[in-house]
Amino acid sequence: MNWSVPKGTRDFYPEDMILREHVFASWEKSCRKYGFEQYDAPVFEHLELYTEKSGNEIEGQLYVFEDKAGRRLSLRPEMTPSLARMVAAKGQALKKPVKWFSIPKLFRYEKMQKGRLREFFQLNMDILGVEDVSADAELIAAAIDTMRDLGLTSSDVSVHISSRNLLEELFLAVEIPAEKLPALYALLDKMQKMERDEFNRLILETLGNENQATMVQKILGAKSLADIEIINADLVSLAELKTLFGYLEAFGLADYAVFDISIVRGLAYYTGTVFEVFDTARTMRAIAGGGRYNKLVSLYGGPETPAVGFAAGDVVLSDLLIEKGLVPTERVKSDLFIVSFGKELKPVIGCAAQMRNAGISTEYPLKLVNVNKQLKQASSANSRIVLFVGGDEELNGQFKIKIMATGEEKLIAMASAAEEISAILEQN
Amino acid sequence: MNWSVPKGTRDFYPEDMILREHVFASWEKSCRKYGFEQYDAPVFEHLELYTEKSGNEIEGQLYVFEDKAGRRLSLRPEMTPSLARMVAAKGQALKKPVKWFSIPKLFRYEKMQKGRLREFFQLNMDILGVEDVSADAELIAAAIDTMRDLGLTSSDVSVHISSRNLLEELFLAVEIPAEKLPALYALLDKMQKMERDEFNRLILETLGNENQATMVQKILGAKSLADIEIINADLVSLAELKTLFGYLEAFGLADYAVFDISIVRGLAYYTGTVFEVFDTARTMRAIAGGGRYNKLVSLYGGPETPAVGFAAGDVVLSDLLIEKGLVPTERVKSDLFIVSFGKELKPVIGCAAQMRNAGISTEYPLKLVNVNKQLKQASSANSRIVLFVGGDEELNGQFKIKIMATGEEKLIAMASAAEEISAILEQN
Repeated sequence: MNWSVPKGTRDFYPEDMILREHVFASWEKSCRKYGFEQYDAPVFEHLELYTEKSGNEIEGQLYVFEDKAGRRLSLRPEMTPSLARMVAAKGQALKKPVKWFSIPKLFRYEKMQKGRLREFFQLNMDILGVEDVSADAELIAAAIDTMRDLGLTSSDVSVHISSRNLLEELFLAVEIPAEKLPALYALLDKMQKMERDEFNRLILETLGNENQATMVQKILGAKSLADIEIINADLVSLAELKTLFGYLEAFGLADYAVFDISIVRGLAYYTGTVFEVFDTARTMRAIAGGGRYNKLVSLYGGPETPAVGFAAGDVVLSDLLIEKGLVPTERVKSDLFIVSFGKELKPVIGCAAQMRNAGISTEYPLKLVNVNKQLKQASSANSRIVLFVGGDEELNGQFKIKIMATGEEKLIAMASAAEEISAILEQN
Repeated sequence: MNWSVPKGTRDFYPEDMILREHVFASWEKSCRKYGFEQYDAPVFEHLELYTEKSGNEIEGQLYVFEDKAGRRLSLRPEMTPSLARMVAAKGQALKKPVKWFSIPKLFRYEKMQKGRLREFFQLNMDILGVEDVSADAELIAAAIDTMRDLGLTSSDVSVHISSRNLLEELFLAVEIPAEKLPALYALLDKMQKMERDEFNRLILETLGNENQATMVQKILGAKSLADIEIINADLVSLAELKTLFGYLEAFGLADYAVFDISIVRGLAYYTGTVFEVFDTARTMRAIAGGGRYNKLVSLYGGPETPAVGFAAGDVVLSDLLIEKGLVPTERVKSDLFIVSFGKELKPVIGCAAQMRNAGISTEYPLKLVNVNKQLKQASSANSRIVLFVGGDEELNGQFKIKIMATGEEKLIAMASAAEEISAILEQN
């Protein structure tokens, strides 16, 4: 029998939890800083929740199953449908703006690649109920801050921003038929992975019109909003993007933000701003991605609700943090370890209870082996203080303690041991 | 289309997260206090992991599915098999004692009842590698402390303790054949739910021997370890239980602990101490349950590893906390809300960025509506301080702020605004 984890999933031993907890705690802190509240939803949903949004093809990537009553269910491949369902269910009763975050475990039955697992975590942040581009700015600022708060600077990561509307306006202005846009977006989404010649050939094939193909290539050659302005200064979405970049500058985050016309995002449901966060070296998959999706809540029967959101996976991000040396390494099991000279466990337990009741993380040897072995346990628990029970000092109402970082030994009063130890832990 | 959650699952809106996060944070704090480290495992496992431990019948309670490569997988109905698999995989390399906790989401396809859902959370705590009953005591003390830390006292909850070995020793001493023990345990597990007469009839039917049936009834009538001692003083497990209760007294937790011979636990894999935590009024299902299981790690190919653990579900516990009025109610979205007199969002954003960079949880109106509407948003965010941007005070280099709890208004220097606000937040 092979007792391994299912393909594409991970065990988290305590040493693996250090990085995960570091990332989750940082994510949560960033979200709270921006006034986002946490929500959660079931790990599986009715399959239709996903096919309604993404079409039946999505089923190929899902863990689908039937429950015993014949309901067709799917492990959640993303959080946004659950979020939109929840917001739709509350209808107008929900106070806007909704600023919510979640850290769901998600499941995709995909080919395994570097940075891609079948079971993974995501941070999701969404703002619903605000049409103005100020919400896009607030959300992108939050996305950047989740990176900054983990120690990543603008030399490590940048957010590439564009707008679905910008491309639409530009393309329609050169009279590309609306029905050809989806095929164009799909091509664009693969642009980075293609040879330029092959890409241009496919553009021409898609459009069947050489003038338009040349125009599209010119549009896609734009490196900045100024370049776009030269092509066509009279676009609603251009003005909006300018405002967005202005806001990001007001946030002090201009260094992180670049205009990138090649960002279209694979998902069909985006309706405006789209963005992706990349490592600046571009050796990894996208760390985060998101955008505006104004039609999803109404798809699930809710009121028309403007919305903007992003998701950041834990796998690529963790790889990047490891590469940049931004991971905590210290593993502390307990602050205090009690070592006993005696043969009786009860006084040790009594002392441990007293310390724990004062909020001090405390361990002691569950089996009273010799003192050297006990000290080894204390050191493998990485405890900051060792307290000795059963020594002669107790005749004078004192405990001997040892501060592990310095090796310093001192006597403390038994009656106020917990207070004294708390004070030492706070100082060090 | 009915966009509801699947049967037996829950959405967690931000207002629902308050209690959940309170319980999880308290659980984690209790675990850390005892020197437990966190671990996690996949949400689904190979089906055999569960059938190996519990037999094929367990499948009826599982969410089983096949992945696209034909692997038979199951959503995890409990955490212990994953834990045992992980410990087994590391073999001797893992330093003992292992003291681990986890807060997994679990899934059981069961009939819905009060206190029972199909998707729920559990706290799991386990100590592996210690044969001595000191580990059982440490674990039960931790279980009690998770309750105490949530505000539950010994008038609210108690832990009912027995030992599989005690029953075995008592039964074998009156010459009940070993092969009849499983049927007896199964009966015992249902004792609380049966009329006494019916129970006695089934005991007799199972044993087919009136003397033995009378003896079993006498044994089951024992209300304390002293009663057991009268029946048979010469039992290894009696001595062990006495030591266990002695340790719990040393922990200062004697008030919470009662001997209860009817506790056998439904699962076949327990090998010693067994215990369950109940509300003292006994109006609810068990809040927690656990015991010693020394054979599970070797079942998954690991070395013989003594182990003791418990699990506490979130559903019954939450019901009890609500009943006892032990739930937090305050919902704070942000500490600071910025209200603007101006028409420009950029200075507001600049101020928000400054505050957030100082770690202050900050919101502002994403759309600059009139000041009264902004103040309403501040009050629905439950913000503790409102800061006004765009007022005349700025000509003197000052911001006006309002402390919401007292209504007090004051002027602070713009240059040190973040420090002054942090100081006020800390005081209040």
